[in-house]
Amino acid sequence: MSEPEMNLTDLSALGEFGLIDFLTKNIQTKNKSTIKGIGDDAAVIEPSPDKLTLVSKDLLIERIHFDMMYTPMKHLGYKAAVVNFSDMAAMNGIPRQIVVGIGVSSKFSVEALNEIYDGIKKACEVYQVDFVGGDTTSSEQGLFISVTVIGEAEKNSIAYRSGAKPNDLLCVSGNLGAAYLGLLILEREKKVFEANPKMQPDLSNNDYVLERHLKPEARTDIVKLLNEKGVVPTSMIDISDGLASETMHLCKASNTGCIIYEEKIPIDQQTYDLAKEFGIVPSVAALNGGEDYELLFTISQNDYEKIKDVQDISMVGYMTDASEGQQVISNDNQSFELKAQGWDALKKREV
Amino acid sequence: MSEPEMNLTDLSALGEFGLIDFLTKNIQTKNKSTIKGIGDDAAVIEPSPDKLTLVSKDLLIERIHFDMMYTPMKHLGYKAAVVNFSDMAAMNGIPRQIVVGIGVSSKFSVEALNEIYDGIKKACEVYQVDFVGGDTTSSEQGLFISVTVIGEAEKNSIAYRSGAKPNDLLCVSGNLGAAYLGLLILEREKKVFEANPKMQPDLSNNDYVLERHLKPEARTDIVKLLNEKGVVPTSMIDISDGLASETMHLCKASNTGCIIYEEKIPIDQQTYDLAKEFGIVPSVAALNGGEDYELLFTISQNDYEKIKDVQDISMVGYMTDASEGQQVISNDNQSFELKAQGWDALKKREV
Repeated sequence: MSEPEMNLTDLSALGEFGLIDFLTKNIQTKNKSTIKGIGDDAAVIEPSPDKLTLVSKDLLIERIHFDMMYTPMKHLGYKAAVVNFSDMAAMNGIPRQIVVGIGVSSKFSVEALNEIYDGIKKACEVYQVDFVGGDTTSSEQGLFISVTVIGEAEKNSIAYRSGAKPNDLLCVSGNLGAAYLGLLILEREKKVFEANPKMQPDLSNNDYVLERHLKPEARTDIVKLLNEKGVVPTSMIDISDGLASETMHLCKASNTGCIIYEEKIPIDQQTYDLAKEFGIVPSVAALNGGEDYELLFTISQNDYEKIKDVQDISMVGYMTDASEGQQVISNDNQSFELKAQGWDALKKREV
Repeated sequence: MSEPEMNLTDLSALGEFGLIDFLTKNIQTKNKSTIKGIGDDAAVIEPSPDKLTLVSKDLLIERIHFDMMYTPMKHLGYKAAVVNFSDMAAMNGIPRQIVVGIGVSSKFSVEALNEIYDGIKKACEVYQVDFVGGDTTSSEQGLFISVTVIGEAEKNSIAYRSGAKPNDLLCVSGNLGAAYLGLLILEREKKVFEANPKMQPDLSNNDYVLERHLKPEARTDIVKLLNEKGVVPTSMIDISDGLASETMHLCKASNTGCIIYEEKIPIDQQTYDLAKEFGIVPSVAALNGGEDYELLFTISQNDYEKIKDVQDISMVGYMTDASEGQQVISNDNQSFELKAQGWDALKKREV
C-alpha cells in the first residue's frame, strides 16, 4: 500500500561485498563491551565480569511472519530487532549486540534492503544496542531475516521460565491483545484492497493497535524498573504467542498450576472496542492473540508491596500446585481450563 | 540421487512445539560455560575471565549455497555448523556454543529435518560444541539454515584480518581447490542424471574431493597447534571464497600488498589430476575455487622457525608494502595482478 518507488537499484549492481559495505556504512558501536563489530570473521565482545551472556535467535519469514503488502520495510527491520531484544528482557537481561542475516530475492531493490537496515539501526539506537554483524545473501524467492542478539544479565538476577512456585503472583506488563487487533485490521483492509485496488485502506483511528502490531517494543524498561525496586522475578517469559500459551510455558517449566482472573487481564480501550467490532471477546484476544511482546512474570508474594503501585504492571493471577491444573476464572466466576490456541507456525495454513 | 524414503512424517503432524521437542530431545551440554541451553527465551553462557567472546553467523540457502539433489541432509547440517566453527578458527579462537534456525517448507518430512539436526549434533560432538538453541519454522518454499556460533579467544592472541605487516609470511593450512573440484564433479553427474535419470552417477575414486565439498572441516586443530608452538598470527581469515579473494581481504584490512608464488600453493594430487581432466589450471582452482575452509594467515618472520617443519602449513608468499600491489608470481616467473574471481552470491546467476 506504499507509493511505488522510482529509480531503484538492482541488487546485483553492487555485488556481494559492495552491497554489504553500502548497507553497513556509518554503523558505529557504542557499548564498551563491543571490541570489534562488522568487518571480520566474527564479532568480538568483552564480557563483563559477574555477568552472564545471553544469546537469542529468531527468524522472520515473508508470508509466514509478515506480509510485504502492508509491512513497511523499515518497521520490519525494527520489529526483527525488537522481538529479540524482548527475549533478553524475558531473561531479566539487557540486549547489547545484534547480528543480522538477510536472505533476499532479486526482486528486492538496494533501497528496500536499506530500509530494513535503517529499521534495525533505529532499534539499535533506541535500545543502545551495537550492530556487530550483517550478512546479506540471495534467496530464490521471498525475504527472510535471521537475527541473533547477545545480551547480559546479572548472575544473581537472571529469570528463567522454571523458577515459579505455588502462590507466586502472576504479573504482566502493559496491556494485551492490541497487536492481534492491529493484525486483524491490516488483514481486513488487505482484502478490501485486493477486491478493489482503487479503494484506499481505512486505517484511521486505529494507530495504537496498528503500531502495536507493526512496531512492537521490548520491555527492557520493566527490567530496569524491577531492578530499581529490588524485585527479581521467580520466572519470566515474553508474550509472543498470547497470554494463555506463555502462562502454560511457565507452568510446564516450573511444574506448577495457575489461576488467571479474566477481569484482571489488562486490555486497552481501543483494543476492547475493536474486539467488540470484530465480534471477538476482548479477553480471548488477550489470551490467544500473539505478538504483544509484553513480559509475563511471577514474583514472590513478599515482593508484592514493592510493585503494587506500578501502573504498568498488572497482577492477573497466581501460581498453584501443579495438581490444581491451569485455570481461568471468568468474569461470571466460572472456572475454565486454560488452553493455548495461539498461532502455530507449523500447522498447515489456509490459503 | 538418494533412495526415496518410506513412511515419512508430515511436519504439521507434530505442531511447532512438538517438532522442536522432537528434534532437540537428548541434546546435552558439555562445556562448563554453558549454563542454560535449549528451552528458555535465550541461551545463557558464563564467559571465561580473560577471554573474549566471538560471535559469527552464516546463512545457507537452498539452490544458492547447496543443491538438495546431491546434498545429503546430514552432511548439510554438519557443514552448516562447521563453516561457522571455521569463523571462530579464523579469529584464532575455539567454538563453544551453537544456535540454529531452520526455515523449511512443508514438502520436507520430520525425518529429513531430523537428519539435518543429526548432522549438526555430529559436528557438535566432533568439535565439542554445545547446541544451545534451535528454532524451526515454516517457509513458503525451500530450505534455509541460519547458524550462529559463539566462541572464545584469549585476549592476547585474537587474530583479526587487519594486523598483517609488510614482510610477514603468508601461510595456508592444508591444501586448496579440492572442494571446488568436488562441486564440479557433483554438477557434472547431476547433468548426466537430469539427461537420463536411469544413469547412475559416477562418483567413484573421487572420495577426497567430494568429502571436501560436502563435509568440510574447520581447522581448530591449527589454532591449537599455533598456540602450542607459541605463534600468534598477525592476521587470519578462513578460505571460503578462494585464496585470491581472501588474500585480498587481508591486504585491504591490513593495508598491505602481497606476493603469492604459484608453485607454493598446496594442491592435493587428486585435485590436481581432476583439474587437468576438467581443463582447469590447478592453481586457478585453488585461487578462485571456494569452500575449502582452510586457514590463511600471516606470521612475523621471527616465528618462521617455530612452524617451518609443520607438514600441514605451507608458506605461499609474503606481505609487501601496499604500494607494491597484490601479485601472483607464476611458475614461469611472470608477475600477474591478483584478482578475485570467486563466487559472488549476489551476481545474477545463470539458469
